[in-house]
Amino acid sequence: MTKPIIGVMGPGDGASQKDIDNAYELGKLIAEQNWILLTGGRNLGVMEAASKGAKHSGGLTVGILPSENKDGMSEFVDIPICTGLGSARNNINILTSDVIIACGTGAGTTSEVMLALKSDKLVLLLNPSENLVNLLDELPYPKPNLTSSPQNALDLIRQTM
Amino acid sequence: MTKPIIGVMGPGDGASQKDIDNAYELGKLIAEQNWILLTGGRNLGVMEAASKGAKHSGGLTVGILPSENKDGMSEFVDIPICTGLGSARNNINILTSDVIIACGTGAGTTSEVMLALKSDKLVLLLNPSENLVNLLDELPYPKPNLTSSPQNALDLIRQTM
Amino acid sequence: MTKPIIGVMGPGDGASQKDIDNAYELGKLIAEQNWILLTGGRNLGVMEAASKGAKHSGGLTVGILPSENKDGMSEFVDIPICTGLGSARNNINILTSDVIIACGTGAGTTSEVMLALKSDKLVLLLNPSENLVNLLDELPYPKPNLTSSPQNALDLIRQTM
Amino acid sequence: MTKPIIGVMGPGDGASQKDIDNAYELGKLIAEQNWILLTGGRNLGVMEAASKGAKHSGGLTVGILPSENKDGMSEFVDIPICTGLGSARNNINILTSDVIIACGTGAGTTSEVMLALKSDKLVLLLNPSENLVNLLDELPYPKPNLTSSPQNALDLIRQTM
Repeated sequence: MTKPIIGVMGPGDGASQKDIDNAYELGKLIAEQNWILLTGGRNLGVMEAASKGAKHSGGLTVGILPSENKDGMSEFVDIPICTGLGSARNNINILTSDVIIACGTGAGTTSEVMLALKSDKLVLLLNPSENLVNLLDELPYPKPNLTSSPQNALDLIRQTM
Repeated sequence: MTKPIIGVMGPGDGASQKDIDNAYELGKLIAEQNWILLTGGRNLGVMEAASKGAKHSGGLTVGILPSENKDGMSEFVDIPICTGLGSARNNINILTSDVIIACGTGAGTTSEVMLALKSDKLVLLLNPSENLVNLLDELPYPKPNLTSSPQNALDLIRQTM
Repeated sequence: MTKPIIGVMGPGDGASQKDIDNAYELGKLIAEQNWILLTGGRNLGVMEAASKGAKHSGGLTVGILPSENKDGMSEFVDIPICTGLGSARNNINILTSDVIIACGTGAGTTSEVMLALKSDKLVLLLNPSENLVNLLDELPYPKPNLTSSPQNALDLIRQTM
Repeated sequence: MTKPIIGVMGPGDGASQKDIDNAYELGKLIAEQNWILLTGGRNLGVMEAASKGAKHSGGLTVGILPSENKDGMSEFVDIPICTGLGSARNNINILTSDVIIACGTGAGTTSEVMLALKSDKLVLLLNPSENLVNLLDELPYPKPNLTSSPQNALDLIRQTM
């Protein structure tokens, strides 16, 4: 049995302080469960903060990088996967994660949430824009799972296991 | 100089009749300009209708298939590109198109619009959901280009060339 | 029914004059059959020469580019597919081609021949290195099809259709 | 600083007993160095044996799967990366590994060695077919590094670090 891999997706450059704080906390909580954290691996925004939080709690972090090498990688990534695929790597983020948490809203994050809808995986939203929630509500997929805090997201994941 | 490649993206299974009619008309108008039509290549919804419209006007059609072979391909695709990438092929749709027209709204279509934001390409929306428009409005990218009809979309493309 | 897509694979920078001459001739012959030529799309070696030959005979040429845009593209490519996948795009070359002709021997070409073995497609070798032939001979796949000239390769393809 | 990731590539179905024994030993030795083992992740041949050897010595194993899910995964993989890319994932194996060891010879393995030539990475061959060595000798890249045993391969890697 492999350990659960929890993907935390969120904005890079455009992340808000709230999203960064949430991501750090998510990383910590995921590590405390002894689960594996997966992010897009870059040294920016939600990816950086979640990886940092996980490492500060002794967790294991995987980064699915868009680039062919480790340039721009977060120093808190233990296992950098150099895909060389650019944004096509977003689909690997989704396929590899057992659960996806969208932490904030951005263009890349939204593309990942959309790809995740097509899987049967648990997708959680933390601090999403209202417009994203409304859009998800109208698409022919199960309703999005809104969470109120990192701890609430973790509790929901534990309930499904 | 290669001919312009116009990508028409839209729902497969869940396409509305309006989106299908628009897609057919877009295919026709693109072919009449002697431009190349690009779609996701499947025999469903907007992909099928746009390809059909283009072929009925003697156009050339490219289909970027998610599969390793031609199973499920639209019969109106001249050049099937078998990527074997699943949904990761969405990024090729965007990178290869000179202009992207989102015809309707769906999960895959939204993922493509989000990927397109990161390019500097012209992205046009035809009959989008209001929630998609609102979401795009709040993202830190140029405002989405709303079009009122297939003909209006074509006119806008011609103005930018 | 789509037209047959014939993939001509071969060295870029390191192509010999013989391989370049063969590629040009292959492109011409493929175009004369009204088949579609597929290459890796770059303005180098076998890719450039085959595309040039096909265009000089009025053919249609597809280029599966490793890059995200058209930089470095052969001017003789009609339909550039910008994959942004780097060398991972080699697999698309194989999956999309109905028949593969390896024109000369190089690292990339060899990787493509190896991927082609796993398909059930006709793979032809034109002017391969003896060491490549010996290696192919020992692998648990159908024997490689050696051809003596571009015309001979075309004749073999026609016989299988 | 991330730990070194050592990619062990080799045949699946067609692996010889010698290749399987070597792969198991390589996995063990890599784990004993506290390095990370990377394979193609499947429950077959060299991939399975190397992962098993690493786990028996308490190592960490990454598997870059061709599939969209964990079907056919080796039970000795700690971190399955579900790429959904088919054989296009071979390029991720190479880009992600800091050092590549080809353990035996097969079609997929050869494709990976060829892709690795284009990187500046250390590529080691263990029990290669003579025809593969001859082919590599003639290509315009640094000469292949032949190793005589798993221990010898490990010693060579340590010398380069």
